[in-house]
Amino acid sequence: MKRIKMGHGAGGEMMHELIDSHIAPFLPAFPADVPLRSFDDSAVVDGIVFTTDSHTVKPIIFPGGDIGSLAVCGTVNDISVMGATPIAMASALVLEEGLEIEILERIMQSMGEYSKRTRVPIVTGDTKVVEKGAADEIIITTSAIGRRSAHLDHDLKVAKKYRKVASKWMTDDNLRPGDSIIVSGTLGDHGIAILSFREGYGFETEVKSDIAPLNELVEGILEVGGAVSMKDPTRGGLANTLNEWASKSKVGIEVEETKIPISAPVRNACELLGLDPLSIGNEGKLVVGVVPQMAEEVLDAIRGFDIGKRAEIVGKVSKDAGKVVLRTEVGGRRILEPPVGDPVPRIC
Amino acid sequence: MKRIKMGHGAGGEMMHELIDSHIAPFLPAFPADVPLRSFDDSAVVDGIVFTTDSHTVKPIIFPGGDIGSLAVCGTVNDISVMGATPIAMASALVLEEGLEIEILERIMQSMGEYSKRTRVPIVTGDTKVVEKGAADEIIITTSAIGRRSAHLDHDLKVAKKYRKVASKWMTDDNLRPGDSIIVSGTLGDHGIAILSFREGYGFETEVKSDIAPLNELVEGILEVGGAVSMKDPTRGGLANTLNEWASKSKVGIEVEETKIPISAPVRNACELLGLDPLSIGNEGKLVVGVVPQMAEEVLDAIRGFDIGKRAEIVGKVSKDAGKVVLRTEVGGRRILEPPVGDPVPRIC
Repeated sequence: MKRIKMGHGAGGEMMHELIDSHIAPFLPAFPADVPLRSFDDSAVVDGIVFTTDSHTVKPIIFPGGDIGSLAVCGTVNDISVMGATPIAMASALVLEEGLEIEILERIMQSMGEYSKRTRVPIVTGDTKVVEKGAADEIIITTSAIGRRSAHLDHDLKVAKKYRKVASKWMTDDNLRPGDSIIVSGTLGDHGIAILSFREGYGFETEVKSDIAPLNELVEGILEVGGAVSMKDPTRGGLANTLNEWASKSKVGIEVEETKIPISAPVRNACELLGLDPLSIGNEGKLVVGVVPQMAEEVLDAIRGFDIGKRAEIVGKVSKDAGKVVLRTEVGGRRILEPPVGDPVPRIC
Repeated sequence: MKRIKMGHGAGGEMMHELIDSHIAPFLPAFPADVPLRSFDDSAVVDGIVFTTDSHTVKPIIFPGGDIGSLAVCGTVNDISVMGATPIAMASALVLEEGLEIEILERIMQSMGEYSKRTRVPIVTGDTKVVEKGAADEIIITTSAIGRRSAHLDHDLKVAKKYRKVASKWMTDDNLRPGDSIIVSGTLGDHGIAILSFREGYGFETEVKSDIAPLNELVEGILEVGGAVSMKDPTRGGLANTLNEWASKSKVGIEVEETKIPISAPVRNACELLGLDPLSIGNEGKLVVGVVPQMAEEVLDAIRGFDIGKRAEIVGKVSKDAGKVVLRTEVGGRRILEPPVGDPVPRIC
């Protein structure tokens, strides 16, 4: 008898197999601008961008954030990376009997702060309570709707000066050989902060979660123009993001290990724990595919934002369909596989 | 130290107090056609109707349905009762490690069937896995978006022949003295089916959940016209629905006990268990407020649907602001209070 394993929720190959074989086949297909089967960050239906995420992070309060800030930013970001402007959020709470109301209030305050900061209102919600032991303290499911960004047409027009662009949104299938890949900042902070804090390793004194909303950064990039695809490298990290792109765009991607920004404490923690920072989830980072002629300008724009100061052009798109290659520090080349399970579970 | 209790998730007074005191105050208010603070079945933002619900029903498979059919119908219904047509759904799954994949597939099949039947596509989703013991088997959070029904303007135009109508949607604040109240069928089936099956009382051989999508029924009513408010009496049952209406519309409501449709097995079960069928949740029933001149026509239209055959006009709206009165079989009058906690927890 096949049963659900932790790795099925990790955002990697096991999860994709679960969805492809045991979930999606039962759901009837309907036409949509960006349908379920494209498994993009959000769907687009009738001009409305729509997304949902359940948050089961453990512990619910951690260095750099809590489940409330995570729930707001995660959902705002999934709308934004489609090239859209989030206009409203919904929040569904599942509370465990016995949860301190003071902790609930702290989390609601955090949701409120990020709602204000991103200017995305929480317009509807739901509250369920389950018996002690039937859920871990609190599970928050946030959904959001958005509209096409006012700057997206400009962005695509700039890109089209240099090459044909198929998709009208920043979808995963939109990369073409020659495109540049930009990462907006250091990778691995969120996953390492949670893991270290939860297990008591001590790295959390130096490493905090990178939780941040990406909506302003995305608008800033679209105003410059030339971006063709965007993703936020959450579960499965950059390794998963690049492999999803390579598979859906039917291209290869080559990245330079030395260019990928990783902070020294995260690098040290990963070495000690035997983890690959490229497979670890982030919650305030953006990966952008951009036509090469605009790469430097987009990089400059990203660096103009506080959360983008350590942005780098990390690689480029090749013709080698489906293959993601990492050029290592010492000049070698290795295939960067998508993670199978999850090195750090329950981080979002 | 104040802590979350089971009653906080029951849809009654305790839940309203929790939301009013410990959740809503932290969430910044933004303008919307129907905002968070109206606590209606759905919000309306920029013409888009938007709703969310987490489903934590126990057990996940029960007489008449399962958590999948519940999740689809519950969310479709929350959009529909605003006078809207649902156009897409999102589904976020939290799976407990160890869940049999066969059971997951059965639930997905059920979601797929109801998605097909209601013609509302599931366009986006999320999958998380938590350790054994960190959630009960499966939690499904469904969200949905909808558009104003093509028949809503006609409906309101008919109502306006007879009186002024303030809201442009079927909101809770839209009743006025004199309006008729219609219930679309027997009450209490869902809650009693779940409770009886879970506790092994045996009534479930006769009582099945009434889970059903209300979208076609709602469109049918709007085509006739004259409806001014609609609600689906889920958690807290009819007692909660009528009290929410009375409070938000600043009116009284008088209902006739003998008119309220309740099946004999549900009545028997409630008597034996000491439960009030009017406080028990339903998942396929509609309560409609309608201008009195159109009440009979709307009733006929409802009875034309399979799920509406046992519909009745159960009462009318009075001037006695905030007060819900039940005229009993023997001619007495008693206040029908909103339930405080929940006689039957974890039914949705």
